[in-house]
Amino acid sequence: MKATGDRFLLDEDDIPTHWYNILADLDVPPMDVRRARAAAPASGQDQARDGYPAQARDLAPNIPLSMYRGSIGKQRHVEIPAEVREQYARWRPTPLVRARRLEQALDTPAHIYYKYEGTNAAGSHKLNSALAQAYFYKKAGVQELTTGTGAGQWGTALSMACQALGLGCTVFMVRRSLEQKPYRGVLMKLNGARVVASPSGSTEIGRELLAAAPGTEGSLAIANAEALEHARTVAHGRFAVGSGENHVLLHQTVIGEEALRQMELAGEFPDIVIASMGAGSNFAGLAFPFHREKLRTHAATRLIAVEPEACPKMTRGRYAWDYNDFSGTTPMTKMYTLGHTFVAPGVHAGGLRYHGAAPLVSALYEQGLMEAVAYGQNAVFEAGALFARTENLVPAPESAHAVRCVIDEAVRAREERTSPVILCNISGHGLLDLSAYDQYLAGGLEDHTVSDEQIADSLADLPEALSAGVAQ
Amino acid sequence: MKATGDRFLLDEDDIPTHWYNILADLDVPPMDVRRARAAAPASGQDQARDGYPAQARDLAPNIPLSMYRGSIGKQRHVEIPAEVREQYARWRPTPLVRARRLEQALDTPAHIYYKYEGTNAAGSHKLNSALAQAYFYKKAGVQELTTGTGAGQWGTALSMACQALGLGCTVFMVRRSLEQKPYRGVLMKLNGARVVASPSGSTEIGRELLAAAPGTEGSLAIANAEALEHARTVAHGRFAVGSGENHVLLHQTVIGEEALRQMELAGEFPDIVIASMGAGSNFAGLAFPFHREKLRTHAATRLIAVEPEACPKMTRGRYAWDYNDFSGTTPMTKMYTLGHTFVAPGVHAGGLRYHGAAPLVSALYEQGLMEAVAYGQNAVFEAGALFARTENLVPAPESAHAVRCVIDEAVRAREERTSPVILCNISGHGLLDLSAYDQYLAGGLEDHTVSDEQIADSLADLPEALSAGVAQ
Repeated sequence: MKATGDRFLLDEDDIPTHWYNILADLDVPPMDVRRARAAAPASGQDQARDGYPAQARDLAPNIPLSMYRGSIGKQRHVEIPAEVREQYARWRPTPLVRARRLEQALDTPAHIYYKYEGTNAAGSHKLNSALAQAYFYKKAGVQELTTGTGAGQWGTALSMACQALGLGCTVFMVRRSLEQKPYRGVLMKLNGARVVASPSGSTEIGRELLAAAPGTEGSLAIANAEALEHARTVAHGRFAVGSGENHVLLHQTVIGEEALRQMELAGEFPDIVIASMGAGSNFAGLAFPFHREKLRTHAATRLIAVEPEACPKMTRGRYAWDYNDFSGTTPMTKMYTLGHTFVAPGVHAGGLRYHGAAPLVSALYEQGLMEAVAYGQNAVFEAGALFARTENLVPAPESAHAVRCVIDEAVRAREERTSPVILCNISGHGLLDLSAYDQYLAGGLEDHTVSDEQIADSLADLPEALSAGVAQ
Repeated sequence: MKATGDRFLLDEDDIPTHWYNILADLDVPPMDVRRARAAAPASGQDQARDGYPAQARDLAPNIPLSMYRGSIGKQRHVEIPAEVREQYARWRPTPLVRARRLEQALDTPAHIYYKYEGTNAAGSHKLNSALAQAYFYKKAGVQELTTGTGAGQWGTALSMACQALGLGCTVFMVRRSLEQKPYRGVLMKLNGARVVASPSGSTEIGRELLAAAPGTEGSLAIANAEALEHARTVAHGRFAVGSGENHVLLHQTVIGEEALRQMELAGEFPDIVIASMGAGSNFAGLAFPFHREKLRTHAATRLIAVEPEACPKMTRGRYAWDYNDFSGTTPMTKMYTLGHTFVAPGVHAGGLRYHGAAPLVSALYEQGLMEAVAYGQNAVFEAGALFARTENLVPAPESAHAVRCVIDEAVRAREERTSPVILCNISGHGLLDLSAYDQYLAGGLEDHTVSDEQIADSLADLPEALSAGVAQ
């Protein structure tokens, strides 16, 4: 490993050997029956009590124990299988870069570093978990994976992982995202995946939704509901999820583990760690290992999640038990949520249009161990465009949320005459999102806001509100 | 530097210190007055004799001597300025990879290697020359560069180089390419460049063409003619060209210099070197250093340029004096050409739709020191799609031409029970060309052919044919 100018690079040998399980260092609310359902199929009885009797009755055990195990106990370090590390070596370790031109453009005394996860063929951090999941599912005898995808980054990553490991793949992609970013669909098809615009006519839940609201733009929760329904019809098929679940967050910690070593190489430790927040895999991937290091060194590092104003689950949501999908077929987990029936306005950061935050990130937030902030689209794209001009790297709209927050902190540092070390994650490139940048440059982006009424409406669909039988 | 599995990586210290000037090892036809015009402005008198009296009368000296010098003499190795090497270090050295999954898919005994030039922010090899040119022009006091671009790779690269070095930038992009690949235009705009669809109403030649043929799709020769006209109107402005010229080919030799060392690292020497052919900068960049090495070791390595059937300048063109632009304002050079008025059908490999081959590549071909082959679109995209599926890297349509030839050679090796070492250049990624892949997957691509009549027509516009005053 070595520092070359502003780039801090690790060798293939430096690819982390272990993922980091934050449960070793975090008190989470006690697991109860609703939580435990993540491991075992929900019974029809439980579902009936929640008011969603039909859909989940035959939900098969989904997650291979070999994969699940490492993400539930208190074991701090979980070994990465050799086969997965070998796959990681196709593009990891990823670079950490000092954004010196951005600093100069902002005339800030802050030191800005970014970790860049867009160097792989899928173009985002999602491949970290996709390859791990494809490996564990294949080992468990699975032959085809199905998933829902918002912006398409998860779907692209899963299609590539399935292609690499010889599994079939079906992707339900949010219709609005597929229309905005058709290229991601092409990428998936090039990888041999079947791509379905969601809501679709090929599932029951999709047909129902299309009948009720023909022009609906879809949401990740809906796409996941369709994928879940579809996966049950496929022999040796399973539903694979790209964020939220403990094991997904676990896989992503390779990002932060590498970044820790790279910051050491740079001779600094971040005062502020910033990442965008969809369901939380990107934020957790970077921030969790720094949480561990903070505990060890008693550093005062701030961890900040950045979400869109159009989907403010942390800044305006409720900490409650909820489902991960629109139809309520998944097990419930405790999370910051806007309600699983919440459909965010169609902003370009499709990967952040998810109604809830991962349970582990939610617990961290509830306990005051991290912060959250929300931005509108124009402020985000302004930041992304400045980053592109200065660092010659177009961030994905999702990642541009983090950049917005970085810029605000750096400008504040200039005004307050402090010089913090800021680290953020550029989770992916925006080369397939350039139409959104074009709209921004042409002044045509809307800053969607969400009304209190809309949030109240979807929160009214929370299982706790529907069923008196299950206490909060 | 080191080999890690199938990847052969160099360190920053291994970035070549010198470009390679093939003139040291190649007999080219004697320079006469027409050739010498590349260095000096054409006089009105000469132009009048060519039948194009008006346009070039006030053509200013264009190329800084500091840049030009290294590409005309017999000096074999031309030092790369430290500032340019520093810029190169932002992404170079680029990887060389053994395409083992492609080999497996083809069940071939051939060893296939590819050099990958798409890892920089502009996404192609073009940045190698763009940065060098921006450096030399800036040193010569130039404040703005103007260019024409076909597929947009050169324009994107130049906009980034200008942004990096603080120069203004105007890009005339072939209208059809801009419509097919709007994202490249956005990238240029993000870099602060002014992007103009060509033919445009903002130049005389553009207005004339639009009046004569309103629906015309444009060509690189037309875009260059507009850029030349525009550059003359800008104070401290110059026209920068992305291929064809000796100095551009010189800059690109960093590709082959690195590849030579990487093949050594792999413990093999290529029997076949393959690259796609627009005007020649990509082909020359990879192949020229191997030509030198062949001379030294007497290796029997074949050098193959791959062009589209829609623009078969080498396989069906004539070796003659011709202009580089549609309106005939540039100096003439001796080249394989279809005539500067040739407008290729609108294939997706926009970067290869250029009527002529670089003089240095043309000389190499004329002397039987290299081969050329042409393919139709569907065969090319079939190859690109297979490469994407196996190597998880979507090649630009231009680069997919090389892949097609690689596959054919590898299949032949299987049939003939030989095991050649094949090296090709993936000059850029196809992430901004996915609509073309989509069309291919949907079966909607046309295989454009060019009639003998069309070629005869445009060859009739060659200066030698127009003017009896200038002998062949």
